[in-house]
Amino acid sequence: MNTAELVELAQQLRVDSVRASDAAGSGHPTSSMSAADLMAVLLAEHLRYDIDRPAHPGNDRFVLSKGHASPLLYSAFKAADAIEDGELVTFRKLGSRLEGHPTPRQLPWVETATGSLGQGLPIAVGIALAGKRLDRGGYRVWVLCGDSELAEGSVWEAAEHAAYEHLDNLTAIVDVNRLGQRGPTRHGHDLDAYARRFQAFGWHTIEVDGHDVDAIDRAYGEARSTVGQPTVILARTLKGKGVEAVEDREGLHGKPLPDADEAIAELGGRRDLRVRVHEPPATRMLHAVPAGHVELPRWEKGEELATRNAYGEALAALGTGRGDIVALDGEVSDSTRAEFFAKEHPDRFFECYIAEQQMVAAAVGLATRGWVPYASTFAAFLTRAHDFIRMASVSGAGVNLVGSHAGVAIGQDGPSQMGLEDLAMMRAVHGSTVLYPCDANQTAQLVAEMAGLDGVRYLRTSRGSAPVIYGPDEEFPVGGSKVLRSGDHDRLTVVAAGVTVHEALAAADTLDREGIQVRVVDLYSVKPVDRATLRRAAEETGCLLTVEDHHEEGGLGDAVLDAFLDGRPVPRLVRLAVRRMPGSASPDEQLHAAGIDAASIAAAGKLLVEEAVVR
Amino acid sequence: MNTAELVELAQQLRVDSVRASDAAGSGHPTSSMSAADLMAVLLAEHLRYDIDRPAHPGNDRFVLSKGHASPLLYSAFKAADAIEDGELVTFRKLGSRLEGHPTPRQLPWVETATGSLGQGLPIAVGIALAGKRLDRGGYRVWVLCGDSELAEGSVWEAAEHAAYEHLDNLTAIVDVNRLGQRGPTRHGHDLDAYARRFQAFGWHTIEVDGHDVDAIDRAYGEARSTVGQPTVILARTLKGKGVEAVEDREGLHGKPLPDADEAIAELGGRRDLRVRVHEPPATRMLHAVPAGHVELPRWEKGEELATRNAYGEALAALGTGRGDIVALDGEVSDSTRAEFFAKEHPDRFFECYIAEQQMVAAAVGLATRGWVPYASTFAAFLTRAHDFIRMASVSGAGVNLVGSHAGVAIGQDGPSQMGLEDLAMMRAVHGSTVLYPCDANQTAQLVAEMAGLDGVRYLRTSRGSAPVIYGPDEEFPVGGSKVLRSGDHDRLTVVAAGVTVHEALAAADTLDREGIQVRVVDLYSVKPVDRATLRRAAEETGCLLTVEDHHEEGGLGDAVLDAFLDGRPVPRLVRLAVRRMPGSASPDEQLHAAGIDAASIAAAGKLLVEEAVVR
Repeated sequence: MNTAELVELAQQLRVDSVRASDAAGSGHPTSSMSAADLMAVLLAEHLRYDIDRPAHPGNDRFVLSKGHASPLLYSAFKAADAIEDGELVTFRKLGSRLEGHPTPRQLPWVETATGSLGQGLPIAVGIALAGKRLDRGGYRVWVLCGDSELAEGSVWEAAEHAAYEHLDNLTAIVDVNRLGQRGPTRHGHDLDAYARRFQAFGWHTIEVDGHDVDAIDRAYGEARSTVGQPTVILARTLKGKGVEAVEDREGLHGKPLPDADEAIAELGGRRDLRVRVHEPPATRMLHAVPAGHVELPRWEKGEELATRNAYGEALAALGTGRGDIVALDGEVSDSTRAEFFAKEHPDRFFECYIAEQQMVAAAVGLATRGWVPYASTFAAFLTRAHDFIRMASVSGAGVNLVGSHAGVAIGQDGPSQMGLEDLAMMRAVHGSTVLYPCDANQTAQLVAEMAGLDGVRYLRTSRGSAPVIYGPDEEFPVGGSKVLRSGDHDRLTVVAAGVTVHEALAAADTLDREGIQVRVVDLYSVKPVDRATLRRAAEETGCLLTVEDHHEEGGLGDAVLDAFLDGRPVPRLVRLAVRRMPGSASPDEQLHAAGIDAASIAAAGKLLVEEAVVR
Repeated sequence: MNTAELVELAQQLRVDSVRASDAAGSGHPTSSMSAADLMAVLLAEHLRYDIDRPAHPGNDRFVLSKGHASPLLYSAFKAADAIEDGELVTFRKLGSRLEGHPTPRQLPWVETATGSLGQGLPIAVGIALAGKRLDRGGYRVWVLCGDSELAEGSVWEAAEHAAYEHLDNLTAIVDVNRLGQRGPTRHGHDLDAYARRFQAFGWHTIEVDGHDVDAIDRAYGEARSTVGQPTVILARTLKGKGVEAVEDREGLHGKPLPDADEAIAELGGRRDLRVRVHEPPATRMLHAVPAGHVELPRWEKGEELATRNAYGEALAALGTGRGDIVALDGEVSDSTRAEFFAKEHPDRFFECYIAEQQMVAAAVGLATRGWVPYASTFAAFLTRAHDFIRMASVSGAGVNLVGSHAGVAIGQDGPSQMGLEDLAMMRAVHGSTVLYPCDANQTAQLVAEMAGLDGVRYLRTSRGSAPVIYGPDEEFPVGGSKVLRSGDHDRLTVVAAGVTVHEALAAADTLDREGIQVRVVDLYSVKPVDRATLRRAAEETGCLLTVEDHHEEGGLGDAVLDAFLDGRPVPRLVRLAVRRMPGSASPDEQLHAAGIDAASIAAAGKLLVEEAVVR
């Protein structure tokens, strides 16, 4: 396209953004209008993408980090003949795939859900990593960012990661329209302020007038030819560009234009330009994904080892059997034991340093390209990435998250290092799976099994050694549980998982000696939960005692309730959990102080049974 | 102290760090040894602090951002005569106040809990903000950071915030020992790499040999005399400095020295130097905190407004009556309505831009100086700060967090903007309070009440208008609930909060017309929960139906269970919550699609009651 045509295309994108938002009665047209020239030139001149084959391995990838500019994205889809004009005006309506913020659920050209700012670039780094280190397919990753979102620390984690990995296949385009939602940004139109920051982090920077299509075209060309470092294009733009009533004015974020017809007239009226997006080169992925036999590690009953060790060994074995498995870690792989994988498969291991948001984002990015990522850090520090995990579920991303050092059982390090909120966090993620093994064989089986699940999957591992209580051929279906002890005269069921399974078994021995038979259920699948077993146990034994190394809210105890929400009467329930803020102490002292050790379980169980007798 | 004495002091800090870790059998002596010279010079020459009066308003503040170097901190406490030598060897033992990572719970010289990396600097920015903009007491804030933690994006949010606010009372000292936990950092000893980044963000930078006490002394002097911008001192150090067996070696993070006696000998043996820390200047806080009468806004029944609007108005009124109230927002104050406060009290409002971690950290910092912060953003985006919220609870920080735009009821913007996990997140925070008002008067009362609570307090507000259903003089004690409808023949209790209260009332009208009397409980206090009312309602009506605009895990439905964990049989429970991933739609369509609107409640209630009859 020549200059005049590009200008026309940009105006069409503006007009269609105004139309879509006007039809919806909401949306972000002014945030779309600032970036219309940037989008037009990208779409017509630089993107390599087969619209009819979104899964083409050679396709470039585009991420709209400023997800609220969705009208611009959908207008571009229309211009590229991906959607019809009629669909454009279904924007934000019930059932439309043109959601307020883009998600990949029904739109094959969308890589990942955006709308929580500062996430698009970090995820794009993951996609570019896949391109550079794994796929080697030659595709580029383009990300359109807002200027406001550069205040998010996650952007700088991404900047650091991308430069360190020399991701010259990554281009960030920043639409510096100087206005955030509430008002001016910190740096306004000071492009240099942003350039200094990106340069310091090792990026190539280009400053450009974001409404000069020729300058934009040259900038994209320069980005494509830059070798050895990622490029950021800092584009000076005006929010609401092209319509005087809204251009560069405050107080108009996220609002349809006051008079759409007038605005469309001012923009030169409706157009129906169609762009034939450049096709990607014929590409054959260089990576082959061998799908061999997975030989999981095996342990004999009575051996002692930590579930985190079993995780590391199982992941390494899984990686040997499956070429699509990749691992990421937040600079604690010696603790999480992801280092076992790293040593055997260094080409598929990604060190993310102490940047948990970036770690999860990179995992999401890798998952969009078909890789199966396992990302690990301390369970406590996964909270750092909560918003990314939440958004991963909106994307429907298949990522495996592994939190080690769960609970007070870590001992001396104290509460800052203890995962005591992780089960609550992960359970509340839509469509998630939450697993919490208590021994090595169980861990290994679950590590392999989680690879095949949908959505966000979480595995919680423990720091300290524990005896192997299951044989190596035992199976542990997701959604199941194991009844470890039961008899006809059980008067109580103790429901435990992870470290508390061993405490529960010891407590059952104690109570047995006192003539109280106890059933013990290992609820390794915290979500989904084994409703049938729990319901039966409760009915047969009369009461359930849950015990967990987690705060009392949102964890195992709450999970058990899922079994009793069918409207039938619920048996008697008592919960043991971490109720006080722990300090430093040995693991055994911690379990005792928290009231979740064998002695505490036995005492609570006895009280519960005796009360039942009195009543 | 002269150079030789400072060197001796530093060696003593190393020796005591080795001794403490050796006695504990765990801990981070090598991470302490690298920073011993930095700490010695600070303690002896530059810190202004009355050890006997930690609350002295003129005291400098010190934050150990690399919290794992706690042996160094405690060794400094000993050198400053704050603790006895005998206490040093209680490090990490049950009951000791010398925890693995420092917390302020029992140590009056500790500002804030650290141990989750990348948090100390952001919180210190909050303290420095208090010093600069509110207290104006002339104190300085010193933060000792590790180099590894500079990979956390939160550090760069803090860097941006501090420079923008010209916090020349803030000095960050980075112990660049080049080794993280697992191995070398990205930048090793390349001090320039860090300097470029901090300079780009607007900081004054000083590079120094971190084992040259005279150079360190000059650097601190330069930092103190730098005007208009914060200073970072980048100190080249060696991990494990002074003991050849561990110096600058990998694989020794977080481990006691292999031979403590030999190491102590190599360091020159035990010493017992005492430092008289310079006293702060006589200081009178310039800020006065007027404690006037709080005149909350009042609304009449039947008026319509959003609880977020009531929040903004109530907060502004609270700020008028109380001079210690401050507010922070993440660049969405026009949406959260924190702008109402900002307009009336601009001197006590802190714009944090789109950096939620920094917003919460700044709130924690302000709270350490006695201010009562209210920090607001969309409920969804508070997940970004989860780790900071978790650590705030370890600190026992009194912060008020306010999440607006909760739930599917926001409508068209879609799932990225919907808080659907926030109740689960906030409930699982130790010692937290979780409040979810349904009308304006209730909101105003709770806004005022939460100011006086301990720990982390959360208020959830809604985007859309709702009718005022309570009079302006109604009281809403934390831990209470309101029975909005009840009768002798109730056959069902619907437990709701926020937007679902109005749906529940409409459903009760519907069912009443069909001859089914329904009790409706407004559970505005989600944590703590009103056990007595719930238990009584369940017993009197036979079953409870909970309905919430939140995912089904960890929210209102789980909270209700708290009332039934006393070992007595539990009545029949059914839960309505958001089970599917929402898309875009109008608020009413969203509530219906999620099955939490009046029609869905009525249908589920009817089914439940009819099943009860059959049984």
